Amino acid sequence: MIDSVLLLEGAMSIEKLQRYREQMRTELDKVVDFWQKYSHDTQYGGFFTCIGKDGKIYDQLKYVWLQGRQVWMYCRLYRTMERFNKPEILEAAKSGGAFLRRFARIPNSGSPWKCAFCLTRDGKALKVQRTIFSECFYVMAMDELARVTGDKDMQVKQPGALNTSTIKFSVVKLAICDQYSHVEAAQMMDQLVHWVRVDPSGLGKPQLSGDTPVCSMAVPMMLLCLVQQLTEARSGEEVDKYREVGGWCVKQILQHLQRGGTAILESVSSEGKELPGCEGRLQNPGHALEAGWFLLQYGLENGDQELQRTAVDKFMEIPFLTGWDKEHGGLLYFLDVDGYCPTQLEWSMKLWWPHCEALIAYLMAYSHTKEPALLERFSQVYDYTFSHFSDAENGEWFGYLTQQGKVTLDFKGGPFKGFFHVPRCLYMCEKILDSILNKQET
Amino acid sequence: MIDSVLLLEGAMSIEKLQRYREQMRTELDKVVDFWQKYSHDTQYGGFFTCIGKDGKIYDQLKYVWLQGRQVWMYCRLYRTMERFNKPEILEAAKSGGAFLRRFARIPNSGSPWKCAFCLTRDGKALKVQRTIFSECFYVMAMDELARVTGDKDMQVKQPGALNTSTIKFSVVKLAICDQYSHVEAAQMMDQLVHWVRVDPSGLGKPQLSGDTPVCSMAVPMMLLCLVQQLTEARSGEEVDKYREVGGWCVKQILQHLQRGGTAILESVSSEGKELPGCEGRLQNPGHALEAGWFLLQYGLENGDQELQRTAVDKFMEIPFLTGWDKEHGGLLYFLDVDGYCPTQLEWSMKLWWPHCEALIAYLMAYSHTKEPALLERFSQVYDYTFSHFSDAENGEWFGYLTQQGKVTLDFKGGPFKGFFHVPRCLYMCEKILDSILNKQET
Repeated sequence: MIDSVLLLEGAMSIEKLQRYREQMRTELDKVVDFWQKYSHDTQYGGFFTCIGKDGKIYDQLKYVWLQGRQVWMYCRLYRTMERFNKPEILEAAKSGGAFLRRFARIPNSGSPWKCAFCLTRDGKALKVQRTIFSECFYVMAMDELARVTGDKDMQVKQPGALNTSTIKFSVVKLAICDQYSHVEAAQMMDQLVHWVRVDPSGLGKPQLSGDTPVCSMAVPMMLLCLVQQLTEARSGEEVDKYREVGGWCVKQILQHLQRGGTAILESVSSEGKELPGCEGRLQNPGHALEAGWFLLQYGLENGDQELQRTAVDKFMEIPFLTGWDKEHGGLLYFLDVDGYCPTQLEWSMKLWWPHCEALIAYLMAYSHTKEPALLERFSQVYDYTFSHFSDAENGEWFGYLTQQGKVTLDFKGGPFKGFFHVPRCLYMCEKILDSILNKQET
Repeated sequence: MIDSVLLLEGAMSIEKLQRYREQMRTELDKVVDFWQKYSHDTQYGGFFTCIGKDGKIYDQLKYVWLQGRQVWMYCRLYRTMERFNKPEILEAAKSGGAFLRRFARIPNSGSPWKCAFCLTRDGKALKVQRTIFSECFYVMAMDELARVTGDKDMQVKQPGALNTSTIKFSVVKLAICDQYSHVEAAQMMDQLVHWVRVDPSGLGKPQLSGDTPVCSMAVPMMLLCLVQQLTEARSGEEVDKYREVGGWCVKQILQHLQRGGTAILESVSSEGKELPGCEGRLQNPGHALEAGWFLLQYGLENGDQELQRTAVDKFMEIPFLTGWDKEHGGLLYFLDVDGYCPTQLEWSMKLWWPHCEALIAYLMAYSHTKEPALLERFSQVYDYTFSHFSDAENGEWFGYLTQQGKVTLDFKGGPFKGFFHVPRCLYMCEKILDSILNKQET
């Protein structure tokens, strides 16, 4: 089958897509190398995440979000990309998983599932957030680890890119605690759903009379991401339970489309109405784009064409129209829907991760719709991203630029930047380009 | 008495100082006008603090820090500057005080003194911090209000710039709740000292195994500021108690002078040693300069010449040498003492308040030492500050510039910028210049 749109555009388009794939592949290899080389703590386990521009560790703290994300990313690469199916990747993931399992949860915090936000190098809890995100990345890590190391408790339909001999090898090497990874992921997921949909009091936020419930888009987005993780290539009763959660998440995310479908607002009331003040007017283009590809993926999996259309026309189009900086290029970090100045000091900065999400979103959307405008958009974001964030000298990407595009924080890893958005973007773009080009070649 | 250094520098210096005084006076009038015009909530009491560049309210939330600071500043101006001794200033301060007294504290939070961080327009608690600062600004507000409205519980040595008839007028107009302002300030101060020196558990921070006690310079600075507020022109047993606290604060602040007296570090261990990682290496030049003038003032009041020298040579000199941006001018917000990139996204921005603190520090230091280099430094900061932050078009100051000096957040008031640093700086500089020039003229 030859794709008709690509045919129209001619051989140049195929060459262009091949060049993109080559670039994604090369860059992913360099990024994986960087983290393998600098981030592993061979003494205490887990990963350093505060890593300077040339790989030097400038702080030994271990952020739980980033530990969980790195375990997930290593496992995903190991499981689904032939060239990363190497023992050292698996061993690093297992080391991170063991560190998390041993240290992330906080004893005596009111819930056996509450995790710290930040640990000392040797695993002592240092900070705890009154949110669900450390726990979400814990679930992602444990579930993906379970898929790699055995996943004995669940019915597996597609073992992915691994052949049976590799899986057996992994199972043999499995430490006893690894057997419970999936069970842990499932139990913590139940706790997360309870916190979000039933009773948040276990998170430790004090009850205040003026603090009316606010729906932050991050929460259903994160849960939807976990639903997709936990249900991928599986079936059964537990999966049905997650699918119900997924449907709820989608409904919640769609509530953030406001003002007659012209704006994506980061926070809305629990009734899905606009909130007063700065909080109600806040737009986060990177988040909207990430929600866009989550929704598109969900819409594709469930054959929901209306949701696919909303994902592309609203969650991908609006953040570009409002968030792309026409003067300097790149996506602004925050915007106020009524044009006031946001109060976040970093509002006008260019951060790496919204650009990662935009690349995934536009390429995924192009791959399914074949609308040339979406490939154009991908190209535009690609040009800005690769020329501004990628560091040809020392590898990996810078994370933080001024509005004018100058690197202003020059580390490669920090409290919120780990081995996640960059490799996930490169990995997904490579996969999507593979799929487009493979269709071409058949 | 004619000042010898000024004599040497000749008439030009006097003219220059007179010009500075004129500028401070004009600017202070404009700033007071701005907040009087736009910030008063005549419906619910208290002050709006989220105010756009042209005076428009863009959010109605009321931040407790800023409510307390505005009450304090209005009262201080009313009490000690003839031209602000006007009923409308007093009424606004009392409205803010009543709002705070009615709404700031959080019932059922474990301590009767714990205050919210942020309130809705009608006074419902929205957010609470696990720190002491809302409570500190509450003390400042209540004590200064007590000084203006009566202060019957304390022995007053010098009623300040007000004559007795004005005080009587104030006392007559005193609402019943105002009588307790000083008592409230004193009781909350006791609670603050208990939280800081005895047991912080009432602040609501969970106990975590890796969270070893950290001394942040902000805490003893803030307490020292309160000690100076509560003891000014007073004597008696309570004052002796505060003086002991003051001595402790000074000792604590001096622990932040590290590395053989070459660096001021924002956080140290409870034993006064350098902490590992980013936290231990963090420098905050604005804070160091503010601590500098607090220490100088304390040293002058107590005749401690060594402390005066340390304040000027260390707390004012080091932050300038490390924090002044040689390329673009202005003071950087955060620095890492070993030259790593700070992880705070705003590290390279130029914020208004460090410049305010620098102006007070260098002018106060010059006024007492008469070292021309300190007046030079004042001039350098003055030129940058007045040409970059002050808004000739709509009044008041911008608060947030890029490293290159471009306004990047254009509001005049926000969650952390209220009627405080700018007017306090202008007020103190005018007072200091008065005192220098008055000596000249005698």
